[in-house]
Amino acid sequence: MADIAVLGHGVVGSGVLEVLLSHRESIAKRAKEELNVKYILDIREFPDLPYCDRFTKDFDRILNDDSVKIVVEVMGGLEPAFPYVKACLEHGKSVVTSNKELVAAKGAELLAIAQRNNLNFLFEASVGGGIPIIRPISQCLAANEVSEIAGILNGTTNFILTKMIREHMGFEEALELAQQLGYAERDPAADVEGDDACRKICILASLAFGTHVYPRDVHTEGITHVTLGDVGYAEAWGGVIKLIGEVKTLEYGKIQIEVCPMFVSRESQLSSVDDVFNGIMVRGDATGDVVFYGKGAGKLPTASAVVADVIDCVKHFKARKYLFWEDAKPGYVEPYENMVEDVFIRAKGNDSDAAFEVVEQVFEGAERLIRREEEEGEIGFTVKDVKVKELEARFARLKELGVEPLNHIKISDF
Amino acid sequence: MADIAVLGHGVVGSGVLEVLLSHRESIAKRAKEELNVKYILDIREFPDLPYCDRFTKDFDRILNDDSVKIVVEVMGGLEPAFPYVKACLEHGKSVVTSNKELVAAKGAELLAIAQRNNLNFLFEASVGGGIPIIRPISQCLAANEVSEIAGILNGTTNFILTKMIREHMGFEEALELAQQLGYAERDPAADVEGDDACRKICILASLAFGTHVYPRDVHTEGITHVTLGDVGYAEAWGGVIKLIGEVKTLEYGKIQIEVCPMFVSRESQLSSVDDVFNGIMVRGDATGDVVFYGKGAGKLPTASAVVADVIDCVKHFKARKYLFWEDAKPGYVEPYENMVEDVFIRAKGNDSDAAFEVVEQVFEGAERLIRREEEEGEIGFTVKDVKVKELEARFARLKELGVEPLNHIKISDF
Repeated sequence: MADIAVLGHGVVGSGVLEVLLSHRESIAKRAKEELNVKYILDIREFPDLPYCDRFTKDFDRILNDDSVKIVVEVMGGLEPAFPYVKACLEHGKSVVTSNKELVAAKGAELLAIAQRNNLNFLFEASVGGGIPIIRPISQCLAANEVSEIAGILNGTTNFILTKMIREHMGFEEALELAQQLGYAERDPAADVEGDDACRKICILASLAFGTHVYPRDVHTEGITHVTLGDVGYAEAWGGVIKLIGEVKTLEYGKIQIEVCPMFVSRESQLSSVDDVFNGIMVRGDATGDVVFYGKGAGKLPTASAVVADVIDCVKHFKARKYLFWEDAKPGYVEPYENMVEDVFIRAKGNDSDAAFEVVEQVFEGAERLIRREEEEGEIGFTVKDVKVKELEARFARLKELGVEPLNHIKISDF
Repeated sequence: MADIAVLGHGVVGSGVLEVLLSHRESIAKRAKEELNVKYILDIREFPDLPYCDRFTKDFDRILNDDSVKIVVEVMGGLEPAFPYVKACLEHGKSVVTSNKELVAAKGAELLAIAQRNNLNFLFEASVGGGIPIIRPISQCLAANEVSEIAGILNGTTNFILTKMIREHMGFEEALELAQQLGYAERDPAADVEGDDACRKICILASLAFGTHVYPRDVHTEGITHVTLGDVGYAEAWGGVIKLIGEVKTLEYGKIQIEVCPMFVSRESQLSSVDDVFNGIMVRGDATGDVVFYGKGAGKLPTASAVVADVIDCVKHFKARKYLFWEDAKPGYVEPYENMVEDVFIRAKGNDSDAAFEVVEQVFEGAERLIRREEEEGEIGFTVKDVKVKELEARFARLKELGVEPLNHIKISDF
């Protein structure tokens, strides 16, 4: 019998208990050993639960119980998750976590401690909820050079954008609906500002390319500035707007990484990933594009990914799983301003046709888009190979010539 | 250094060598050991290849060389692949194969020998080419009860159907094009009759539900009888026709499994899997629907999946991977005739409206579809909950009443 401890009894934590209890037999068969939750750490009490006797408020009890070889951290956040997880690894306990903030902020450090002590630090649930993605990238694609990963990594924003695209609902209204349905938090900043997606693409980039990428080094835009006008122009262009986390390898061992809304062609598999679903595309030199699709969040999908990691831990007590990456290094992430991108730009003048003539002076080769219900004076157009660092100057030039730039959105190449 | 032998130097075999040679360093890093191809078994000679000195025509040399711990079988077919693989496992060598015919016909027997001798028998490449699917089902979904798997498992037929749907090309013309492009063999029977897809769904069903399913026990229809008329009715219904391999759990520990063309709703993620791509949906009680998408065949995708298995073998020399299923048991697969399905039926009478009146007498609740360019006297309609065993009698009744049934196609529920 394998004794485990679960840190945190919130949404994911209670889901982990639910999965462990409802699938007890099949899990024991797969792990070749019965799993016993010996402790659940939470500051609250749950006297009505059948397993209420497992609760403790004392982390040290868990830390100092040598029978506990696996600790599940599902508290979220860095405090006290980080010191707790670190202490567990230093005390010879393998750790399974669903905490993307922790992995994105402290992954390299924790993986190094795990390696030193020949323990597992597993985090399948931190990206894509119940979609298997960490393991396929690290194992199945072992015989591939991965050159790019692009994904719809946040279900909340994808739900909002889907409502905007399919039902022409405004951003605010769609956000409210998402909150009513429980898809968005009361403070939705981490989702709509792109921070959640940023943590996830950092984890995937770190894993696929072997060097830790910190969220602070990643250009991150959310979807708060996306309008129904932009959605209409994307349709006219032949696609949809999705919030994408993307990382690519560049020459000289560098990478390009960013999180922002993008025009995604209807031909792309990612364009049909709708509602709260996630989709992640992994481009390998041998496999071509492989896409993983499913519910990226939610109690049971996330919990089942956590439990799968626990089973893996039990089966491999003596053989550490090979998950590892180095700490960050200077100059590894190409600065955003050095990027060259295809972009869509929405602007406003007095007269649409006249405004586009101005645009053509400033952006050579601009291609105009016409959307349904276009407003007087509004124009939308695409430009190829724009240097990000030159955009501001070009926008200033447009303004001088009487055309007000309102928004710009990257055009994806997948 | 790990010595391996490769049986067969055809498309996949030469791909395996290409991947091993071109990714030598990164593979050694991941396997924590260098991989050395000591033998390549082929009846042909390849004097111009840089590794021509590794070729042998003598299988016994490989079998009796104790330094070879891993054998890669990429010959295809059962003879001599089956006796060779069996002999390898009996001589203490782990085996990696891409041979779906072998796994579908002999999986239970070979897995039992591997288990007895504490060896690995791995076959990630046998389904979905370079798409990771065997490992995610067996590992990542360990904490889930899988209730259904449905997939587009054959790229050749998917290419043909895509041409029929998008370009209104007839079946024969699309098949010829597929042959010209190298997507279909000169004798296309195994693809277009559904046998290839059948082997793959048998492997997935065996793995997911723990009991071997043999292709002979699976109702299998190909796409040769699908017409442009059917494609038009599918469009009118709101979907597309795809060749689907599907398995579901039933009550009393039974399963329902079949391979046939199906109407797939445009809302389904599988409906947008086009051309030579494969897509596989796995429905779990905790994860919900997870979809895996990518190139299901081809030299390099398949070879990279083989090599990933080899790397896994090397890393786990002392820890057998837990892949196992029991042999088939009587009464486990529900007979096709017992199934109850929603179906689309295309028929012909003298006059369309009159014919549909006849249809309504025979199929209560039939819903008529009207396709573009419908022919004089033609009708298409859908019926819910039809017992398969009653279809023939109902078709006979239709004929008596002057309406000729021409085709029927299952309507999917995913």
